[in-house]
Amino acid sequence: MPTAEETEIPLSLYLWRRIRQLGTQSIMGVPGDMNLELLDYLDEVDGLSWVGNANELNAAYAADGYARVKGSPGVVVTTMGVGELSALNGVAGAYTEQVKLIHIVGTTPTHVQAKRLMIHHSLGPNPDHKVYEKISSHVRCAHAWLEDQMTATAEVDRVIRECMVNSLPVYIFVPMDFVHVPVASSPLRTPIDFILPVDEEQEAIAVSETIAAIRSAKCPVLLVDCLTDRHNAVEEAQALAEIVQFPIFSTSMGKTIIGETHPRYYGIYNGTVSYPGVKSLVEESDCILNLGPLLADSNTGGHTRDIRSDQVIMVESSSCSVFGARYEGVYLKPFLRKLLAELKGCEMPTVTLPVLPAQPEPSDSDSKDIVQSWIWKRLGNFTRAGDVLVAESGTAQFGFPDAEFPTGAKYLTQVYYGSIGYSVGACLGVAIAQKELELETGRRGRTILVVGDGSLQLTVQEIGSMIRLGLNPLLIVINNNGYTIERAIHGPQAGYNDIASWKHQQLLGFFGAESAAESSRQVRTKEEMEAVLVAEAYQSPTSIQLLEVHMDVMDIPWRLRDQIAIINARSKTTKGGTGLANGTKASNGF
Amino acid sequence: MPTAEETEIPLSLYLWRRIRQLGTQSIMGVPGDMNLELLDYLDEVDGLSWVGNANELNAAYAADGYARVKGSPGVVVTTMGVGELSALNGVAGAYTEQVKLIHIVGTTPTHVQAKRLMIHHSLGPNPDHKVYEKISSHVRCAHAWLEDQMTATAEVDRVIRECMVNSLPVYIFVPMDFVHVPVASSPLRTPIDFILPVDEEQEAIAVSETIAAIRSAKCPVLLVDCLTDRHNAVEEAQALAEIVQFPIFSTSMGKTIIGETHPRYYGIYNGTVSYPGVKSLVEESDCILNLGPLLADSNTGGHTRDIRSDQVIMVESSSCSVFGARYEGVYLKPFLRKLLAELKGCEMPTVTLPVLPAQPEPSDSDSKDIVQSWIWKRLGNFTRAGDVLVAESGTAQFGFPDAEFPTGAKYLTQVYYGSIGYSVGACLGVAIAQKELELETGRRGRTILVVGDGSLQLTVQEIGSMIRLGLNPLLIVINNNGYTIERAIHGPQAGYNDIASWKHQQLLGFFGAESAAESSRQVRTKEEMEAVLVAEAYQSPTSIQLLEVHMDVMDIPWRLRDQIAIINARSKTTKGGTGLANGTKASNGF
Repeated sequence: MPTAEETEIPLSLYLWRRIRQLGTQSIMGVPGDMNLELLDYLDEVDGLSWVGNANELNAAYAADGYARVKGSPGVVVTTMGVGELSALNGVAGAYTEQVKLIHIVGTTPTHVQAKRLMIHHSLGPNPDHKVYEKISSHVRCAHAWLEDQMTATAEVDRVIRECMVNSLPVYIFVPMDFVHVPVASSPLRTPIDFILPVDEEQEAIAVSETIAAIRSAKCPVLLVDCLTDRHNAVEEAQALAEIVQFPIFSTSMGKTIIGETHPRYYGIYNGTVSYPGVKSLVEESDCILNLGPLLADSNTGGHTRDIRSDQVIMVESSSCSVFGARYEGVYLKPFLRKLLAELKGCEMPTVTLPVLPAQPEPSDSDSKDIVQSWIWKRLGNFTRAGDVLVAESGTAQFGFPDAEFPTGAKYLTQVYYGSIGYSVGACLGVAIAQKELELETGRRGRTILVVGDGSLQLTVQEIGSMIRLGLNPLLIVINNNGYTIERAIHGPQAGYNDIASWKHQQLLGFFGAESAAESSRQVRTKEEMEAVLVAEAYQSPTSIQLLEVHMDVMDIPWRLRDQIAIINARSKTTKGGTGLANGTKASNGF
Repeated sequence: MPTAEETEIPLSLYLWRRIRQLGTQSIMGVPGDMNLELLDYLDEVDGLSWVGNANELNAAYAADGYARVKGSPGVVVTTMGVGELSALNGVAGAYTEQVKLIHIVGTTPTHVQAKRLMIHHSLGPNPDHKVYEKISSHVRCAHAWLEDQMTATAEVDRVIRECMVNSLPVYIFVPMDFVHVPVASSPLRTPIDFILPVDEEQEAIAVSETIAAIRSAKCPVLLVDCLTDRHNAVEEAQALAEIVQFPIFSTSMGKTIIGETHPRYYGIYNGTVSYPGVKSLVEESDCILNLGPLLADSNTGGHTRDIRSDQVIMVESSSCSVFGARYEGVYLKPFLRKLLAELKGCEMPTVTLPVLPAQPEPSDSDSKDIVQSWIWKRLGNFTRAGDVLVAESGTAQFGFPDAEFPTGAKYLTQVYYGSIGYSVGACLGVAIAQKELELETGRRGRTILVVGDGSLQLTVQEIGSMIRLGLNPLLIVINNNGYTIERAIHGPQAGYNDIASWKHQQLLGFFGAESAAESSRQVRTKEEMEAVLVAEAYQSPTSIQLLEVHMDVMDIPWRLRDQIAIINARSKTTKGGTGLANGTKASNGF
């Protein structure tokens, strides 16, 4: 809070204080000559720290991971053009997966922009210095140029509000000559209003229709998806699960919003790519209460989710559909709160809990080697309340749906956007957020990264940042000699699925970890891996650890195999239909 | 060339054959499920190889470096969205610096695009699968969607032509269902026409005006800049230098187009930031023959180039201005060829060669440590004809203008766009291009990378690709504990200019180099560095080498110091004028 006599402060300081008010404490990014002075003011805000990443893409991934765990926006700072564009793919991922992210770009001064000077980092001859802003217009919900002293603070507040209420990335452009301009500090006394523009009438109808549906349901289920988390309604979802007493299902992306050791938890519903009995249980329900759905291919078994609108209540971020009747201006979190309040006095239908068939026994369950049918479940069992496990795209994403995480453990992965390398950057942000949460709330937990040797190569340098900051994540590297998921899809022997052979046992040493040798291990058998997982260094880590897990190059999770089969079968049909692809090779359609 | 009976081939094969016809032999990129089948056809073209990079940004940098050395376009292949956007910053650099680059993106099939399905890698709900194409519209000169069987080959040919004649990046989007479609192979028999649309009349006037100007000049100079290289006119520039017998100057970006051991070479003209006597010699000339100018700040001493239009002949990529009279449709290379032909019979004015004042003696010239005033010149002397030295943004870029490279050595750096990390990716492309050139022409040369410890962190994983491919670059890492160039600009002690402390001596080992220990060295004194540079491993490298050069954290090249002083002085004036920045801190304007 500003003191009474402090009426004017530099604009940058205003920006940083506003960001601190959101709960954000760590700022990602890479310094550059157009943002250095902006960064000076960061130190003046209590509880705000500069992280400093190895590159901008990693910084954006880290901001994304940070936001998912901390609940407040991830912030990334870059320099015009060069840094700004390098971060773009990370911001696009946050946009697609609805993660709160603020991208602050230090730009050339306004008078230099006006003259279109050929300054380093600009684009071509006679450069428009604002051209990069057009590029990011597709991956954000709002932006502001802080280039008017009179409106700058209102602009900051406006875009922060857009970020928070939409749970999407925003951009703030700070020309160098506006870094220091004095602005009134008084607005800082009032927190930004994040109240959603709820249509009270529509909401009331949606709530009463939902209650009616729930009360008359014969075989209702609760299906929880990821947007519940992104729109800050995890607690409400958990409370709802206790009140309605329905069988609970998650999606791949909604995993761990409801603890998977919950007695009424029935596993992952992912269309055809589900355990036996799951698909029919969900799809034959007369009342599917579906919270925060995101209907991407990998979250719906390759679009094999078969649910009619007349059997589902879709609780979406800004609308709600009850058996096909759609109500606009109904927002996920306030809707659930209202629903919870109204349900309190209601009698709930007695639901007979179904019994699922036994899960099939994997054919290689007696293998002594570390196999796909074993490792994901084992890592799920390894987690405890407070832990966050970050999984990379690839086999991990198709394997972990089999794992069971206890209540209070969080599973974090980027399924819809699916940018390989994401997990390493995100892991840094997660580890920082967990450290902050521990200081704030006392909640302790481990950061666990599970990444393939192929994906690791894209973003490996961020492990150096983890070491520099003294963070203690457990890094589990699946070494199966290249892009196994791609070999499964196409070209099992093709050279393009090979990668450089790194010496993972030397990774921590190279990036500067102390006691790197003792903290680096490799395992090939279940027995070896068990011994590592129970070690003190893994149970209560006090330094970063690396575990290299050697696995067979062509072993894949059953869910990946099944999804590829679905896609290939569909592709054959479609090809006949379009008559376009008649080469000799099979085309992987969707 | 297709055989007579082969009338139809798959579209992808057509694309790869066209690319091979350009002289390109190596394809950069990262595999992904939407481009795997496209990559299958690459193996079917003789002399074309897949590189496979650690990530897409590095791949784009590598394609840029490859193109600058090979002369044919760099090609990078990515997957829709995730890979495509990661490469964007590298493509933007190629756009700004006018480098030929072809970015091929494998996308979802057309029928999936039409349905706007939420497929992994798409953007948000109800996704437009073509949205990413809009994003890259600002960093390319042309693009094609190969989604019409009838026009696809013509589209390929059209965008390749645009790439070649403009020397700029282009995009080719290949939906998965068009990878295999049959197309006529017959167009492949005729090479694509790259003839420039020269306005013959204008060109004739420009040539004759130029000759008149040259012949009546009293104190003419030749000033060679980088676009001469990008528009393929290096040989013409060298021939012109021999005919006109003028004193020769380069810019920072035009360095090594003319060999710097040439008897009439006078060094780098960079406005106020030049050696004594250089600025006045150029700016007092009555006839500056300026080839391929690119007037960015760092190439003009922070815009302190002071040349009037009535004293200069500006030979630009598609126009020519003779003492202020501008001729459009006059292209650099054909103009120079015509000029050379016409000059052959002409008598040239006798030019008295000026004498430059002695270069100032650095105050630390007797230092035993490795200092900025010594290292760049020493590395210049280290190079030989055939070598390519790739320099990173930062102190290296401000130091190397002092160095003297022999005729036939090439200096390569990204001055205008100035994206840190560029050099490591580019070095891979350069090393590949040099290997190809050696096989084609017998020309041997070393690849030398000079990168700071800060910039190295952004793209370090590409060293793994160099090792995998068995390339033998010399990697010289300047270890000065962080972002020294930024410390010089702002915040010498600021934490944001610190970086993670990597163990560079373990770098080669981690990335899998054989004999890594013997190939990793570190030096602190001139004597130690001399011993390394004369070693056989550096004179005739047969394996990758890493040399870590420890230097003082606040030592900077004089050119950087002077340019910062110019900028700061100007900034103070501008601030008074705008009245916007009145904070207590100094603002770095431009």
